[in-house]
Amino acid sequence: MNIVIVGASGYSGAELAKLISLHDSLNLVGMYVSENSLDKDKALASLYPELNGLVDGILSPLTQDALNVISQNADAVCLCTEHSVSVELAPKFLAMGKKVFDLSGGFRLSSNEDYENYYGFKHTSPELLEQAVYGLVEWQKEQIKNAQLVAVPGCYPTAALNALKPLKQAGLLTDDTVIINAVSGVTGAGRKANVATHFCEVSLKPYGLFNHRHGPEIEKYLGHKVLFTPHLGNFKRGILETIYVKVKPGTTAKQIAASYQVLADEPLIRLLGDAIPSIKGVENSPFVDIGWQLQGDQLIVISAIDNLLKGASGQALQCINLTLGLPAHTGFQGVKHG
Amino acid sequence: MNIVIVGASGYSGAELAKLISLHDSLNLVGMYVSENSLDKDKALASLYPELNGLVDGILSPLTQDALNVISQNADAVCLCTEHSVSVELAPKFLAMGKKVFDLSGGFRLSSNEDYENYYGFKHTSPELLEQAVYGLVEWQKEQIKNAQLVAVPGCYPTAALNALKPLKQAGLLTDDTVIINAVSGVTGAGRKANVATHFCEVSLKPYGLFNHRHGPEIEKYLGHKVLFTPHLGNFKRGILETIYVKVKPGTTAKQIAASYQVLADEPLIRLLGDAIPSIKGVENSPFVDIGWQLQGDQLIVISAIDNLLKGASGQALQCINLTLGLPAHTGFQGVKHG
Amino acid sequence: MNIVIVGASGYSGAELAKLISLHDSLNLVGMYVSENSLDKDKALASLYPELNGLVDGILSPLTQDALNVISQNADAVCLCTEHSVSVELAPKFLAMGKKVFDLSGGFRLSSNEDYENYYGFKHTSPELLEQAVYGLVEWQKEQIKNAQLVAVPGCYPTAALNALKPLKQAGLLTDDTVIINAVSGVTGAGRKANVATHFCEVSLKPYGLFNHRHGPEIEKYLGHKVLFTPHLGNFKRGILETIYVKVKPGTTAKQIAASYQVLADEPLIRLLGDAIPSIKGVENSPFVDIGWQLQGDQLIVISAIDNLLKGASGQALQCINLTLGLPAHTGFQGVKHG
Amino acid sequence: MNIVIVGASGYSGAELAKLISLHDSLNLVGMYVSENSLDKDKALASLYPELNGLVDGILSPLTQDALNVISQNADAVCLCTEHSVSVELAPKFLAMGKKVFDLSGGFRLSSNEDYENYYGFKHTSPELLEQAVYGLVEWQKEQIKNAQLVAVPGCYPTAALNALKPLKQAGLLTDDTVIINAVSGVTGAGRKANVATHFCEVSLKPYGLFNHRHGPEIEKYLGHKVLFTPHLGNFKRGILETIYVKVKPGTTAKQIAASYQVLADEPLIRLLGDAIPSIKGVENSPFVDIGWQLQGDQLIVISAIDNLLKGASGQALQCINLTLGLPAHTGFQGVKHG
Repeated sequence: MNIVIVGASGYSGAELAKLISLHDSLNLVGMYVSENSLDKDKALASLYPELNGLVDGILSPLTQDALNVISQNADAVCLCTEHSVSVELAPKFLAMGKKVFDLSGGFRLSSNEDYENYYGFKHTSPELLEQAVYGLVEWQKEQIKNAQLVAVPGCYPTAALNALKPLKQAGLLTDDTVIINAVSGVTGAGRKANVATHFCEVSLKPYGLFNHRHGPEIEKYLGHKVLFTPHLGNFKRGILETIYVKVKPGTTAKQIAASYQVLADEPLIRLLGDAIPSIKGVENSPFVDIGWQLQGDQLIVISAIDNLLKGASGQALQCINLTLGLPAHTGFQGVKHG
Repeated sequence: MNIVIVGASGYSGAELAKLISLHDSLNLVGMYVSENSLDKDKALASLYPELNGLVDGILSPLTQDALNVISQNADAVCLCTEHSVSVELAPKFLAMGKKVFDLSGGFRLSSNEDYENYYGFKHTSPELLEQAVYGLVEWQKEQIKNAQLVAVPGCYPTAALNALKPLKQAGLLTDDTVIINAVSGVTGAGRKANVATHFCEVSLKPYGLFNHRHGPEIEKYLGHKVLFTPHLGNFKRGILETIYVKVKPGTTAKQIAASYQVLADEPLIRLLGDAIPSIKGVENSPFVDIGWQLQGDQLIVISAIDNLLKGASGQALQCINLTLGLPAHTGFQGVKHG
Repeated sequence: MNIVIVGASGYSGAELAKLISLHDSLNLVGMYVSENSLDKDKALASLYPELNGLVDGILSPLTQDALNVISQNADAVCLCTEHSVSVELAPKFLAMGKKVFDLSGGFRLSSNEDYENYYGFKHTSPELLEQAVYGLVEWQKEQIKNAQLVAVPGCYPTAALNALKPLKQAGLLTDDTVIINAVSGVTGAGRKANVATHFCEVSLKPYGLFNHRHGPEIEKYLGHKVLFTPHLGNFKRGILETIYVKVKPGTTAKQIAASYQVLADEPLIRLLGDAIPSIKGVENSPFVDIGWQLQGDQLIVISAIDNLLKGASGQALQCINLTLGLPAHTGFQGVKHG
Repeated sequence: MNIVIVGASGYSGAELAKLISLHDSLNLVGMYVSENSLDKDKALASLYPELNGLVDGILSPLTQDALNVISQNADAVCLCTEHSVSVELAPKFLAMGKKVFDLSGGFRLSSNEDYENYYGFKHTSPELLEQAVYGLVEWQKEQIKNAQLVAVPGCYPTAALNALKPLKQAGLLTDDTVIINAVSGVTGAGRKANVATHFCEVSLKPYGLFNHRHGPEIEKYLGHKVLFTPHLGNFKRGILETIYVKVKPGTTAKQIAASYQVLADEPLIRLLGDAIPSIKGVENSPFVDIGWQLQGDQLIVISAIDNLLKGASGQALQCINLTLGLPAHTGFQGVKHG
């Protein structure tokens, strides 16, 4: 399968370029950046010296000529672009008959109204919102296999949904709002120069109180009300979510554990029981670590992922694998089936 | 006032030694460590090179002779010792007629039962628990002034109580459990060599779920049920607490702001309103930063302190100031009254 | 003395604002940024939350009106501006009769040629290069006292010169090039948003091989050839220099130690002998730490400073103190005379 | 090939366990720790949560029974043990007919005298010092292939020797001492609890001036005098060496570049020319990055590796590959031949 990455100069783009380059059944046939990018015509490895010798190739500008080339040589396009850019590009690539894997938030929510509220723009292809398949791999395998447009989930929602859907599905949640206290590494904020991500300015701090766009994304796919509070943490990669859940009175630890069995055979899910996940455990790894402890009807679930892998490019790769008929975890070195 | 520090080799001990050395009205007349300590007879500055030229003095072993010297030359003793060591030493120094400022948790809870449950030892001076004054400066000034034994509050409770007592006092809280998600820098774990605090092992991670001893301490002095979840963060100094509070239906933002006015004149409290505290804002500083945002009846309060200053030695110094009849913020460079 | 800071939004500007605010004999009567700055009209503490309650005041744009105000109310102007901006502004303030303390490199080198080679611009006031006094406090006290224009030394040169001038002066150096391997914290690169200072991009790495502008600055004031290689380190504040020196055959450890006695009474110099300086020892501190070890005729000298304090704003404050007739170390809390 | 790791709980042991587990032609048949270790009988993944799902297996105590098992089931033994433990164990495993790959310094130097001087113990098997093959892969392939005992090189020497041997071999060095300024991540100091590696104590700082044991190791295999000065850096993994070399007068940049061509086909060497290596470029990677710049007869070479991979376990794996007749870079995902 011939794949093209648009937006390959960013953190998730570069990570995806590496994953695809290391994958036996995939060819990376093009890496593109916007026509105005200062990075155009540079080797990806000149931006990411760690990729020297692992990923060859130049960041080409996405000109009309480039679109023509893609139209000829690619089977699928991965969009690692800004939300609004993805919204604009996806229909073009779909019209060429390409599979599109969008790592932005451009196709995750339900309505134009959501996009105005949470993304601040008018969605130009609202008709695709229904067609797009949400690429939450462990829960959507069949749908992803045949999707033409995959909305790869957000980093925070990936950690939250895998931690909460088992409980929801087992009917253990009360109506209370679930509280999700989340901390992300700085790669989550992108590679663009910005005082907020300056080495000397980064410091543990909440942001986006009450109105972060990943709140409604979680609610949509969980079917439950959440209060989601993200924080910027002073580390590079990883997300840790500490989730406060009220379970139905009388729920036992056994029932909680049983509910998580739905994920027990998933190669990229590590159920830790009452052991406690950490950023260290998931950094540079494709896994979701989930641990939990119960006291009375108060449950605390901890969920951790690498935001660039399971939270973005790793999950995109899983989706690509599924569309090829491969097991979702193909290409992650050393990962065995459950 | 002549002051002695016992346990001066640890992080809070060294910080306190610095604060006292820089204070115009205080003399640091002795620094002690346990008789078995590998640090005995060393200069404090040999452990803390940053104190070279600022704090003179040797870490003496706390022998019987040393106790005799203290009995003669000290007016007050600061205990920066393990909880159980403080419990053992405090009565001795009280019997000598010294003021005792205990930075451990040895005199913060109410009963022997609490100590068995949360500290794992039998309290040998339970009669002192009632006598000890809790040194939460902004709320206990009069009591501290005349106290013989001050239980300097824990780091996490200091951040939590200053954030929550105004709301409690204003009658804005519902009966719901308040959820406190807290992250502390690694100095909070002490200076002792330990794999858990190894540079390469530290990584954002919760610990002590449901049973950390600062939970009951907060509940005791707040008079409200809390769910307190501490995390170790990968930074050196500081505590950030993200606090989820249900306020009574109909509570307005104005009422919330009004409730915090009780702290408005406190020199070491910075009320940020809807601005958001961060670790960076309080690192190496004596302040408590408190910010909050309300949506419906869900309130989020963020509270941040430097765990070694306002969370330990800084607050101890405030207590010492009060017993001398000085304003509590004396000796903190640049701090002005409200 | 009424002081104005131009360029107060950067790291050294903000640090200087704090130092001046805490100083008993100085008034900070204005903080300015360029007319185009996005930070204009903001409170300094909105950029630096740690300064809340310590430094009041707004960052005003440096308009013509502002220049008129400065002309009326200031005795001295501190320039924390880009090199070329300093070169442009200094003559204006000198013409107003103000003392000028320039923290940029605009007046440190000798000739227009130097500026073209190392700074990449044509110096517009080369006549001031001779008039400017180099503010290396421990070595230039008398000159600084009466200076109208002080070129506050660069961060790297401050660490290097204090470490090497004693040896040079004692005649212990051979003609061999002195090798200076230097590592600076990221504040040294300024606060401006830049991919190179992005939290996720910073990583120990040399830069400016053979042509960093601090090389000729060191050589000018040392009178000796050096090979200076700076590195960016992954920490916020501090400079550590590991300096490889060939001393004359037969030089003894005693002679080395004796040469450093010239600095023994300097309050901001800490001579550590064969103990080894570290970044931790000088972070947030006004001191220079100097240690050394000799083997045969090979000497290694280690010099460490906080780049924003002794390496910039701290030394600027020392210079200001001298012009006021105060001891140079006035205003550094807890610092005693040698 | 069946492999056993002794000392598997440390950083290089765990890294090697991972590499072997991911390698198609190798079986990890045992992981051992000392009989007194607190980690015995624990799963390796309980110490290293990132290895969950990647490396199975328990840390067994190295009892006499264990030795009997190893004698039966292993083809090769990797020693990730303290120097003196390796010296004691290697002869036992050699006597069983096993290949031994020693990652300690126990067999790298030449004589008992060296061990007394630099390691502080009397070598109990000095006769093996001559037999041991130094596992500097790019320079010793043939010798390693048939070795029974491989002394896997130290981390610092690996970076230094690959940077310097090309120049030495091309005859470009003068007699001057080569100065190696080296900075290592904290994993280099091992996983043992120690105040020096406490999260809050680590800070850029030189150590071992003039007498670090890697100095003579470099000199032995380079055949040239060096002044080696290691530093502890505040990062987890990686070594960066800034090397100051005097080349013969008249040496051209072309000659320098030509000398490095001897490494051009080595899959794990990345020759960067005048681009500058960084820690970021090599972290978690098996490569050596080498860059250089020349001015007059002064050459600066920068060499960077991941201390646990190319500096320890990665190079051990290369040696194992060679003894199996495989290309040295087998098992490093994505690495292609030159």
